[in-house]
Amino acid sequence: MEVKNGGPSTLRAVDAKEWLGLQPTHNPMRWYLPVTEGICSGLGTLFGGCGLGAAIDALERVTERPVVWACAQYINYTKPPSVVDLDIRIDASGRTTTQARVTGQVGDTTIFIVNASLGSRDIAEEGQWITAPEVPSPADCPPRQLRFDPGNSIASRLDMRMAIDEPGTGRTAFWVRMPEILEASAASLAVLGDFVPMGLGMAVTSEINSNSLDNTIRVMNIVSTKWVLADVRIEAVARGFGHGHIYLWAEDGTLMATASQSAMIRPWKGP
Amino acid sequence: MEVKNGGPSTLRAVDAKEWLGLQPTHNPMRWYLPVTEGICSGLGTLFGGCGLGAAIDALERVTERPVVWACAQYINYTKPPSVVDLDIRIDASGRTTTQARVTGQVGDTTIFIVNASLGSRDIAEEGQWITAPEVPSPADCPPRQLRFDPGNSIASRLDMRMAIDEPGTGRTAFWVRMPEILEASAASLAVLGDFVPMGLGMAVTSEINSNSLDNTIRVMNIVSTKWVLADVRIEAVARGFGHGHIYLWAEDGTLMATASQSAMIRPWKGP
Repeated sequence: MEVKNGGPSTLRAVDAKEWLGLQPTHNPMRWYLPVTEGICSGLGTLFGGCGLGAAIDALERVTERPVVWACAQYINYTKPPSVVDLDIRIDASGRTTTQARVTGQVGDTTIFIVNASLGSRDIAEEGQWITAPEVPSPADCPPRQLRFDPGNSIASRLDMRMAIDEPGTGRTAFWVRMPEILEASAASLAVLGDFVPMGLGMAVTSEINSNSLDNTIRVMNIVSTKWVLADVRIEAVARGFGHGHIYLWAEDGTLMATASQSAMIRPWKGP
Repeated sequence: MEVKNGGPSTLRAVDAKEWLGLQPTHNPMRWYLPVTEGICSGLGTLFGGCGLGAAIDALERVTERPVVWACAQYINYTKPPSVVDLDIRIDASGRTTTQARVTGQVGDTTIFIVNASLGSRDIAEEGQWITAPEVPSPADCPPRQLRFDPGNSIASRLDMRMAIDEPGTGRTAFWVRMPEILEASAASLAVLGDFVPMGLGMAVTSEINSNSLDNTIRVMNIVSTKWVLADVRIEAVARGFGHGHIYLWAEDGTLMATASQSAMIRPWKGP
């Protein structure tokens, strides 16, 4: 799985669609996603960010427009060997912007609902008003220590290096890359945006487990970058739910996307 | 409209439902919202945050659970004298958490779609990891100067005092209260969460107008407070869209909610 920094990859490069295993059908508005171990969390259920990533990838292919923002609501869990059907519905399509929805279901059980806006508009105004935190380079950051053996789960397919590792502060940051994927995309960033639960585990000093209720991603500028800095900021835990944001930075300091999530928190009872 | 600071109000106190004008029907899953000037923006169309607020209020009444997070996608504009029908659908209802949806439509045209999770869980873990910015008190902040006469629009029903007013920096903060409303609620905070477009107008120094694509709110701790500090942070403008977050603070420094939005940007052509 490991690819040497800067060295040639012996893995075949894939795009997000292949990485997730998203499949087309005869109907361009219908896709399906076989739930395999490699897109599941350590608990063995579909990793929410992979559901959002699949929906975004399908939407961008069908509309031929880039995602501006997308929000996934996670309704039910599913695990291998189930197959999620993704049905696209276009709510409005204007000159520059499309409003669309994707429902993910297994049989007649809804797994997730994604709402999204897609488009790109040619106006002069642009800017970035926040800057990336100063952290060591990926080569100088230690690998993430997992609480349990990742097996063949998604964690085994991500190379993660801890850049800010300060339990109790609400701040966590890690460099991450998907060694099989060469280029960042809205779909791959959606996968990386589903790490508020990890940040909650660092912010709350007792042992907890948390499950995402949603994942909202906003895409700014996607640039070529080997590593992505996932900069997690936990805001609060209240009434049994935790909330936070993630900034997804390129190595050159470009803010590629922001993500935000709420998650249900439970005391940790082991894997 | 003005109520003296600390003095007795001569206005009858209302809740968010009355403030918005949300109406029940014989069917608890169906509500309606007459679009009146007082819930419209200066451009004369329904203010997005009022649509989200109405959906949240109806959802909390029907499920008898508080909103954890809710996301409104704005599909089409509508203006007075149209009436928006709000139809609630419960996707999943567990022991502590409900997943639900609200569709807002005028005739058969979809105006907005709201997805939400509601619930409250009794666990020991809680915390707040960020703190409010240090700004002058509302009495020491100047009123917001509007670009044009607010008439009877929503701006005429909000008392706003500029706390951070630094064009070009991406940071804007204002104290705000709804003089007719005595207590903050998730619904009233949803209205106040729809001010990323205002922040974009401050961040981008050329004259622009921006329209929200969505409004995502995450509710932490609602406490009794006279004023709310809306602390707007713009992250970036790219490809014709702007993105930002708002922290909604109580006067005592409690983070009551966070909101985030993406908005379409256009050069300003006058009201």
